[in-house]
Amino acid sequence: MFILNAWYIAAWAHEVTDVPLARRICDEPVVLFRTKDGTAAALLDRCCHRGAPLSLGTVVDAGIRCGYHGLEFDCSGKCVKVPGQERIPQRAAVRSFPLHEKDEFLWIWLGDPALADTTTIIDYPYHNDYAQWPHKHGLYHCKADYRLLIDNLMDLTHVGYVHASTIGGHPKVHVEALMETTPTDTGLKFIRWMRNSVPPPTYAAAVKFKGNVDRWQEFEFLAPGNIIQWSGAIDTGNGAEQNRNQPGFSLRLFHGLTPETQNSCHYFWSTANGYRQDDPAATDQLFEAIGAAFNEDKVFVEEQQLRLDELGEASLVDIVSDRARIHMRRILDRMAAAEGVAASK
Amino acid sequence: MFILNAWYIAAWAHEVTDVPLARRICDEPVVLFRTKDGTAAALLDRCCHRGAPLSLGTVVDAGIRCGYHGLEFDCSGKCVKVPGQERIPQRAAVRSFPLHEKDEFLWIWLGDPALADTTTIIDYPYHNDYAQWPHKHGLYHCKADYRLLIDNLMDLTHVGYVHASTIGGHPKVHVEALMETTPTDTGLKFIRWMRNSVPPPTYAAAVKFKGNVDRWQEFEFLAPGNIIQWSGAIDTGNGAEQNRNQPGFSLRLFHGLTPETQNSCHYFWSTANGYRQDDPAATDQLFEAIGAAFNEDKVFVEEQQLRLDELGEASLVDIVSDRARIHMRRILDRMAAAEGVAASK
Amino acid sequence: MFILNAWYIAAWAHEVTDVPLARRICDEPVVLFRTKDGTAAALLDRCCHRGAPLSLGTVVDAGIRCGYHGLEFDCSGKCVKVPGQERIPQRAAVRSFPLHEKDEFLWIWLGDPALADTTTIIDYPYHNDYAQWPHKHGLYHCKADYRLLIDNLMDLTHVGYVHASTIGGHPKVHVEALMETTPTDTGLKFIRWMRNSVPPPTYAAAVKFKGNVDRWQEFEFLAPGNIIQWSGAIDTGNGAEQNRNQPGFSLRLFHGLTPETQNSCHYFWSTANGYRQDDPAATDQLFEAIGAAFNEDKVFVEEQQLRLDELGEASLVDIVSDRARIHMRRILDRMAAAEGVAASK
Repeated sequence: MFILNAWYIAAWAHEVTDVPLARRICDEPVVLFRTKDGTAAALLDRCCHRGAPLSLGTVVDAGIRCGYHGLEFDCSGKCVKVPGQERIPQRAAVRSFPLHEKDEFLWIWLGDPALADTTTIIDYPYHNDYAQWPHKHGLYHCKADYRLLIDNLMDLTHVGYVHASTIGGHPKVHVEALMETTPTDTGLKFIRWMRNSVPPPTYAAAVKFKGNVDRWQEFEFLAPGNIIQWSGAIDTGNGAEQNRNQPGFSLRLFHGLTPETQNSCHYFWSTANGYRQDDPAATDQLFEAIGAAFNEDKVFVEEQQLRLDELGEASLVDIVSDRARIHMRRILDRMAAAEGVAASK
Repeated sequence: MFILNAWYIAAWAHEVTDVPLARRICDEPVVLFRTKDGTAAALLDRCCHRGAPLSLGTVVDAGIRCGYHGLEFDCSGKCVKVPGQERIPQRAAVRSFPLHEKDEFLWIWLGDPALADTTTIIDYPYHNDYAQWPHKHGLYHCKADYRLLIDNLMDLTHVGYVHASTIGGHPKVHVEALMETTPTDTGLKFIRWMRNSVPPPTYAAAVKFKGNVDRWQEFEFLAPGNIIQWSGAIDTGNGAEQNRNQPGFSLRLFHGLTPETQNSCHYFWSTANGYRQDDPAATDQLFEAIGAAFNEDKVFVEEQQLRLDELGEASLVDIVSDRARIHMRRILDRMAAAEGVAASK
Repeated sequence: MFILNAWYIAAWAHEVTDVPLARRICDEPVVLFRTKDGTAAALLDRCCHRGAPLSLGTVVDAGIRCGYHGLEFDCSGKCVKVPGQERIPQRAAVRSFPLHEKDEFLWIWLGDPALADTTTIIDYPYHNDYAQWPHKHGLYHCKADYRLLIDNLMDLTHVGYVHASTIGGHPKVHVEALMETTPTDTGLKFIRWMRNSVPPPTYAAAVKFKGNVDRWQEFEFLAPGNIIQWSGAIDTGNGAEQNRNQPGFSLRLFHGLTPETQNSCHYFWSTANGYRQDDPAATDQLFEAIGAAFNEDKVFVEEQQLRLDELGEASLVDIVSDRARIHMRRILDRMAAAEGVAASK
């Protein structure tokens, strides 16, 4: 079961156009489209007449037209035209989902529409500040429960193993990082400092450091599915902990995990270049490097999913580095319980 | 469950040769083959010895020989040879199915053999009149319940949407067509007239019309799975309704739907050129054009099937253009009830 | 269910190196690897921390390190390192499986480790005598219950049908072969003589015979999954039955069937050239020819498996040539019963 009374990212805003887009979210087949006036809409991707997917249809002035027998639906899912008859049957409608565009995302609400409060949607202002944070958008499809990807990000000791040759560097650096965790109203925050450490390959390729660096990873988990990250490194001895906004390496990452099915998800991510903003090549290189690292995660969690599907989690053993992960899972379990569902299968 | 006491098309006659052909029909694995004397036979595609498919075997004088250990079966499924032993066990036999060749089709009967009356098989004389109706054979595999393809053909308003750029033309023409439906002993018939209408792209490419046309679509549904179609168009004002056999555009289509599994089927179709019989290129072009249009249907019904599998049909809403479709479904439901099965899953 | 208190081949010894190898055996995901000192080990392929496959990890001095968060396990499955913490949780361990290297095989025991007696492992000395028996190793993955491949080898009348154009020859030769079967403590043995018979294509291509041959096939089935074969042919009239070690054609085959899942298996096979030992090309050709023939078997048993999955075995009919096969199945059923499981699904 999914936590439904929550905003999830349905799509990048630029993905949704006058060509309908089919996307499964929390196991509902959804069609996303944008009408001539720029309004984006999300409907159940099934015509109420004969069940054909509306995503095979056409965007029209009124909304979307089924490509099979021509019924038309407005953005609220109401049928507004049945070819060949005047009267539109009262029951003729498809379910619509609240959809809200903000910070280059389209946020969708699959739960009770009465509870869909757009003021609770995350802020991510960096997407609106291209000059300061030039960025690019990625989207991966992962054959894993979205929570396994959040798990991944809540235990960063993996960085020294999974990403040793990219954004990681020596495992010891990560294992010995100083980590401070803070609960928040909407999730949790942590910051890790790796003082006087060797910069990892990706960082060193991006910026010319003098030698060792003071490196940080700041993560904010916003339940149920999003993580905002600010990472960077500054030459050791320059007082990075007092001022992270000085020259060095700095990036912001957005991780948006949206359940597709019980064991697959959409991974929306963006990379923002905070170290050489006037160099488009740097923005591109960062995107490529991070995309490669996320692919390393994808391989692991997909294989992990297969083992969990087969053998369950009952006999697994927690270790010290699981602390933030366990905290995060408790938040999700509480949210699920509040909806009367089980977050864990 | 399937309606079993009925003739279905198992294959085009030309498909069945001395090389065994495996085909699943009403969820039975069937092997089709033809012996030296020209007899076509249909057996359960499983050797009674160790269960190997007979379709991996060889056609022999007696019938078919299993390719694994050499047992031979005649066209009635009786084992007539066991290598290495004189005595043939009494139980050694595979199920055979009544099979009848007619009008270029091989018709199979999966139900009670005692009820298999070949005189009830449909007539399609055009397949035997190549001079007047030069034609070609097609076969599509569709991942959809065979009834969804019959549904498709019982509500031709889809032609203006799904086939707008091919055999369709403007939706309005189809929505406003005059349609007359007649129940028959074996199904139903309808004819639709689109008077004074713009000829659709495929028609206009085939024949040089003066301007608008009087266009008809005549369909006969023969339960459970076949449809005979005669369509055409004649220059408006020439009295097409009184005489459809005057110069213009005319084609005959055969649609034979045979269940493969509960949600897949074999779609046997032929196109016959009734407008330029002495031009093989016209026969070929018609076949290509219709094949392309049927592919458009295939895309829709396969996607529709996925939605119906997932979300059921309970909340769907009928509209006016469903009339013939609903009538057809009632016929199938009655036939199924007569066999004590449910036609609908 | 599988017979678990038995040695199965897990891998060819040369397959297992310091790069972990994932292989499913009796439906357990197993990781095989070899440490620096040459020890091969088999562990459950799932880290006890978060369930990631250990086969995505790295072989280290101590054993294997999980590639996700760096936990290390020794060859007995005991966790010997948890990055970032001193104390290793008591429950931190993965299951290990007894593994024994012998005659170029790695043998695994999936059942009760207390019963794993390496002295009961089959002898196959020919793998240690390359000069006399130059040989090559093969491994096929078959989508069939391992027993169907043993069935295949227990009824050699199939050779005249499935392999007519390769190692078979005329079916009559096989059907009329004289066969003598002997039960053994660990399975059964049989020898078949095809006296004064035409040599099959593969044999004739390998050796220049004067004309007809006296040909034999000696098989020893060693329950549950292995078969040792010695086959050959000598010019008729030279007293082959008294002395098979005279010039002619001679090969030894090892057939090792290891269950992967209920309906798939690993087929380990080797071909040893006993007729032109100093000719590497002959060793290669033999390997290619036998590999091709085993592929013919693979096609059959995989298709047979599909039919058995669908239609069961209840209505199948045994024939005379099934004798050894039935005997073999009874042995397996007894072994399964002794473990309290059903050998047949």
